[in-house]
Amino acid sequence: MKVLVLNCTLKPSPEASNTEALAAEVIKELEKLGAKVKMIRVADYNVITGSKSDMGEGDAWPAILKDLLASDILIMATPTWMGTLSSMAMRVMERINGLYPARDKEGRPVTYNKVAGFVVTGEEDGARHVVAEMAHGLMDVGFTIAPQSYTYWNNGPGPGDKYLESNFRKDWSIATGKLVAANVIAVAKALKETPIPPPPK
Amino acid sequence: MKVLVLNCTLKPSPEASNTEALAAEVIKELEKLGAKVKMIRVADYNVITGSKSDMGEGDAWPAILKDLLASDILIMATPTWMGTLSSMAMRVMERINGLYPARDKEGRPVTYNKVAGFVVTGEEDGARHVVAEMAHGLMDVGFTIAPQSYTYWNNGPGPGDKYLESNFRKDWSIATGKLVAANVIAVAKALKETPIPPPPK
Amino acid sequence: MKVLVLNCTLKPSPEASNTEALAAEVIKELEKLGAKVKMIRVADYNVITGSKSDMGEGDAWPAILKDLLASDILIMATPTWMGTLSSMAMRVMERINGLYPARDKEGRPVTYNKVAGFVVTGEEDGARHVVAEMAHGLMDVGFTIAPQSYTYWNNGPGPGDKYLESNFRKDWSIATGKLVAANVIAVAKALKETPIPPPPK
Amino acid sequence: MKVLVLNCTLKPSPEASNTEALAAEVIKELEKLGAKVKMIRVADYNVITGSKSDMGEGDAWPAILKDLLASDILIMATPTWMGTLSSMAMRVMERINGLYPARDKEGRPVTYNKVAGFVVTGEEDGARHVVAEMAHGLMDVGFTIAPQSYTYWNNGPGPGDKYLESNFRKDWSIATGKLVAANVIAVAKALKETPIPPPPK
Repeated sequence: MKVLVLNCTLKPSPEASNTEALAAEVIKELEKLGAKVKMIRVADYNVITGSKSDMGEGDAWPAILKDLLASDILIMATPTWMGTLSSMAMRVMERINGLYPARDKEGRPVTYNKVAGFVVTGEEDGARHVVAEMAHGLMDVGFTIAPQSYTYWNNGPGPGDKYLESNFRKDWSIATGKLVAANVIAVAKALKETPIPPPPK
Repeated sequence: MKVLVLNCTLKPSPEASNTEALAAEVIKELEKLGAKVKMIRVADYNVITGSKSDMGEGDAWPAILKDLLASDILIMATPTWMGTLSSMAMRVMERINGLYPARDKEGRPVTYNKVAGFVVTGEEDGARHVVAEMAHGLMDVGFTIAPQSYTYWNNGPGPGDKYLESNFRKDWSIATGKLVAANVIAVAKALKETPIPPPPK
Repeated sequence: MKVLVLNCTLKPSPEASNTEALAAEVIKELEKLGAKVKMIRVADYNVITGSKSDMGEGDAWPAILKDLLASDILIMATPTWMGTLSSMAMRVMERINGLYPARDKEGRPVTYNKVAGFVVTGEEDGARHVVAEMAHGLMDVGFTIAPQSYTYWNNGPGPGDKYLESNFRKDWSIATGKLVAANVIAVAKALKETPIPPPPK
Repeated sequence: MKVLVLNCTLKPSPEASNTEALAAEVIKELEKLGAKVKMIRVADYNVITGSKSDMGEGDAWPAILKDLLASDILIMATPTWMGTLSSMAMRVMERINGLYPARDKEGRPVTYNKVAGFVVTGEEDGARHVVAEMAHGLMDVGFTIAPQSYTYWNNGPGPGDKYLESNFRKDWSIATGKLVAANVIAVAKALKETPIPPPPK
């Protein structure tokens, strides 16, 4: 099973990424379950803003898209800003939007039979809305959303520490991340054995 | 394959329900594909407001829940109010919330291996946000969200006709509804043949 | 200055309401600033589900609406369920929806020059999305949304204690609630002195 | 009265922007009402992704921020992608996030007494959720949200024409845009005459 994790922090390397730290826990479990995982920090690449799969010269998306299309599972990992997904996660969603017309040999959307999962971190506020936004967008373009397929962390009400600075309830977030790993793999396996057929004509 | 459709219009029978009319198109296709479908108009029953599976005397939810638990697929059908799901749909979500602790014989959430799809109608405004809210909530409690598993209709910007009064772009909504039927059945079939195993301990 | 607080907990009295407890902090400050405040727990009344201002026999909404229309400020207080507002809050929004056609003597929507604020409590997950849903709906029907006009509390990631059982970061939620009181009153005062004129014809 | 309109289309000039075309209708009315309006197409400038007010060398945001701080009213104009705001609008929101600590001479957030309005265009789907996201974020940082302060356009259900290619219901969107202009100016005027005082200590 191949998994692509897109870390949509706003910060390029080598700055520390809280989102990456929680995603790493999910990845650890995915690998334990036998998956081959690749994590990409999108901010390290020149992913041009736009809604097509190739925005021309210098665009780093086509290479990332190649990884995505070769994967069975996509994990979207994003920080929370203003109560919603990061602009980097949104930029990725817009580029995934370019896949709408793409079809496989049997006439199916190329994302059919791929499964999505989610990791969200924030200083304060929650993750459910952020997951809802991404889950819907990915389902719309053809991904299947596994049950209980996200984990998250935040600091409770008001400003405070970040994931990497804190020990607050991280055990819950990590344990939930293990469940995410098991669930995305279970659904991807089911779809590998019994794929969604091409849409009726 | 058994399907439960919950029509979450605010209006009890015998008032006409636009949401029911579009849901009927999805049902037609589900039956053509061999599924056994039951549609319930929630407003016709005394579903008590609360967050448990049984709210006591007079509560109609336990009987509906029995149908839900006997089904492989749940279709949530709702009108749009104030840009989001109806309070009736939200009331259903809260009652489904009561399922969190429920486990099957093998220790899995009782909603694992069930699949969700969606129907949304509105006078104006869209459906994507409404679907995002419901899809997230159902995924959180244990449903799998099939790809491209919603259809919707509205009237474009500003107030106007309702679904039953209009012929505007209904062909698109109906064709998309057929795709919904095919997709929820395909994913439910995959999960029937290769079920999600119990969560790791 | 008159303020109406609608507590949209799912639980009727005499059950303890966490949302009411945090709302009480905002009310304390509103009264200190000279406002006359009335709090109603909606679940204690028979507010019939629907989208009109009067749903007929037994409907408790017309009396609540009278209070709302006599107020300068509306505070919507709601628990979080499934990452969004409660079905009771949504039911209230749908009833407020019935005000769209209502005009004052000068032809303005009756909600013009009224101001809204928000209180949200939850076991886990955040409040920003919940506030966004309510703020938008109220703005759409004619309320003005004061800056920094919400406070909230939750428990951080994962299930845990409720507001009334906890001491976690409540000081932040209470201090923020005082700011809410100051801000809704400041904007209501500005609109009282310089009202929004009737819409241009 | 000074107004800044930020057009958050993904497309740099000289590509046609549907969002700009509808925003232009709001601007026309704002100018008729005596306001001095400046529109900036964000995609034409190197607004660096990040959450601070100055992201360093080459960053175009500080100059735009200067315009924003000199304005009484901010109009956020965005296309709809994947059912939510564009990544460019989200990038702007994240940069506005950098204003949280900024205070005026009297200790108020620098955005207090500024008013926000909204323009949304999309091929399909609605605008209410998109407005909710932006209105909440701006309110959180200190803007006041005027009543009925958005207009939008889309094509109804399913893919179809764009605003500039269509004549479908544009009269509604334009008339509503005039109301937006009147309302943001009315609230900005009220706050100019009776400003929100500094937060209590």
